[in-house]
Amino acid sequence: MRAARYYDRHDIRIEEIEEPQLKPGHVAIDVAWCGICGTDLHEYLEGPIFVPPHGHPHPISGEDAPVTMGHEFSGTVTEVGEGVEGLAPGQKVVVEPYIISDEVDIENTQEYHLTENMNFIGLGGRGGGLSEKIVVESRWVHPVPDSLELDQAALIEPLAVGHHAFVRSRAKAGDVAIVGGAGPIGLLTAAVLRAEGLTVYISEISEARKAKARETGVADEVFDPREVDVAEEVRRRTDGRGADVGFECSSVEVVLDMLIDALRPAGVLVNVSIWGHKPAVDMPTLVLKEIELVGTIGYAHDHRRVIELVEQGKVDLAPFITGRIGLDELVSKGFDELINNNESHVKILVDPRA
Amino acid sequence: MRAARYYDRHDIRIEEIEEPQLKPGHVAIDVAWCGICGTDLHEYLEGPIFVPPHGHPHPISGEDAPVTMGHEFSGTVTEVGEGVEGLAPGQKVVVEPYIISDEVDIENTQEYHLTENMNFIGLGGRGGGLSEKIVVESRWVHPVPDSLELDQAALIEPLAVGHHAFVRSRAKAGDVAIVGGAGPIGLLTAAVLRAEGLTVYISEISEARKAKARETGVADEVFDPREVDVAEEVRRRTDGRGADVGFECSSVEVVLDMLIDALRPAGVLVNVSIWGHKPAVDMPTLVLKEIELVGTIGYAHDHRRVIELVEQGKVDLAPFITGRIGLDELVSKGFDELINNNESHVKILVDPRA
Ligand SMILES: [Zn+2]
Ligand SMILES: [Zn+2]
Repeated sequence: MRAARYYDRHDIRIEEIEEPQLKPGHVAIDVAWCGICGTDLHEYLEGPIFVPPHGHPHPISGEDAPVTMGHEFSGTVTEVGEGVEGLAPGQKVVVEPYIISDEVDIENTQEYHLTENMNFIGLGGRGGGLSEKIVVESRWVHPVPDSLELDQAALIEPLAVGHHAFVRSRAKAGDVAIVGGAGPIGLLTAAVLRAEGLTVYISEISEARKAKARETGVADEVFDPREVDVAEEVRRRTDGRGADVGFECSSVEVVLDMLIDALRPAGVLVNVSIWGHKPAVDMPTLVLKEIELVGTIGYAHDHRRVIELVEQGKVDLAPFITGRIGLDELVSKGFDELINNNESHVKILVDPRA
Repeated sequence: MRAARYYDRHDIRIEEIEEPQLKPGHVAIDVAWCGICGTDLHEYLEGPIFVPPHGHPHPISGEDAPVTMGHEFSGTVTEVGEGVEGLAPGQKVVVEPYIISDEVDIENTQEYHLTENMNFIGLGGRGGGLSEKIVVESRWVHPVPDSLELDQAALIEPLAVGHHAFVRSRAKAGDVAIVGGAGPIGLLTAAVLRAEGLTVYISEISEARKAKARETGVADEVFDPREVDVAEEVRRRTDGRGADVGFECSSVEVVLDMLIDALRPAGVLVNVSIWGHKPAVDMPTLVLKEIELVGTIGYAHDHRRVIELVEQGKVDLAPFITGRIGLDELVSKGFDELINNNESHVKILVDPRA
């Protein structure tokens, strides 16, 4: 079968590899669609980061580069291994793409994703969604309703990232949120916040992203910090109080400052973005307002709720799909397109059979 | 009566002022002892910060410089105003030195200290502990047991700062804490943590402060980061896991980095120190470990528990008193001594009648 394999920085190859073999406790899946993620782009441009470099196998997967890429994917079950319950051929599914030690009892561990040497399917080994087929431990396979299109289902994974950020904020329906940055993760986080009943304000400077934020309806209002003092606008709309929760989705220091400014006393700021450096944090204000700055990574026990939100129509994933390409076009129309036209895209989906 | 009055940076005068008049709902107190705080020193060297500058009266107190200084004090009730219950002449007391709007119902407000324009008695007006007498709203006056010496009682206020940091960490008995810095606030925070049943490690480089941390018994172990990798040592003592909670009490960036490193996944780091700039924060690690960085300021609903800990003998405040001076010596043997011999002091107490 064909697969996109990561060899090294700027070296991703589409090649023919062996089909994975079904094992007990595992599920064989025909991949339908796989999204390209900012993390994939980082690996392509600056990696290997999550990918275990050649000669340095990952302690859990035992694999090193080259590895198959792709962790945001949907598909259909073709076969289930011995002992697998609740899944059958024909079932539409998504995968929670973790590589986590077998010793971790994920049902009874709140933060299984923070366990030692955690990595991701599609980065740290164990196949990936940028291939025609994959075999996955059944514990990571989540059924999705038959009514959900598989292209939209491929966005369940990044939506779960946004949902986990929401959970980390401890926000509740009726709260006011300010989201800094309307890139893919900012938009999907905002979509979860709206679905969970919050009032959502977004700060963004890119025209294309502002337009997308408005078009997808994920925000009550979109502010451009070049036009208004965003923190001031948030206070104006909250009787002078400020937002209950903030979400840093831009990796820009002035946005981090703005969010701390826009929060109410005892507000929570979740950092959802990835920083290449140690940003300066406005600690004096964080102290005086007793703000909590909270890290979030991946998801844990989020997929069920996320699938429910989509099933109930509280999140419409269709408008976030901004491109569809075949596997051969992964670099030319995928990575290169994201490098050149990043702001006009939310999610480019890859059909590994096309 | 005599009082230490803050006029401006480097301009504190001991002068004769009018005695404060008792009012309904207020309590008249003869001050016994008043501690000098790092905040007072900041006002002296770099202020006015909390002090309302001359011509800019504070919105709640209505006062501007000169103001009487001192917010860490103990004393004896001499008279109670109309309507005051539960307090009588002769009662030993400490003051929770807030200036907070009368409109805030402090009994029923969790975070009354985060309300608008909050300031402190002894900085923002309403008299101070660096004077012979003070009249205080009864809601801020806390009785202390007769068995408690009034010199030790003057340390209840900074101990409440440490207690509030403990509350903000959401730690519980049996947890492991790492405290960065053994200055006054680091030591008093450590004292609360030990009293509340935590295992406490302290990181400190100053010989005098290391000695004080050992002598006061507030730490299970004191590490010198020039001698050992503190985060590594903490992990060694926690089965590789890391500390549950950390307390930044040094205003030093490498200590902040060390604390984030020393924490377990999902650990909580409380910033207790005051930063003059925006420190660089190791956001990549904060994200990967889902750490929470939490601000803390002052105290709220902490005094009762703090007085209880002292009454039960779980905190011995005597070893933290490192100097006793008279009011006339405030600058020469107080501020100047703290500037020149900072590391050998925890708390210098002032007797406003001497
Ligand atoms: Zn991703
Ligand atoms: Zn103080």
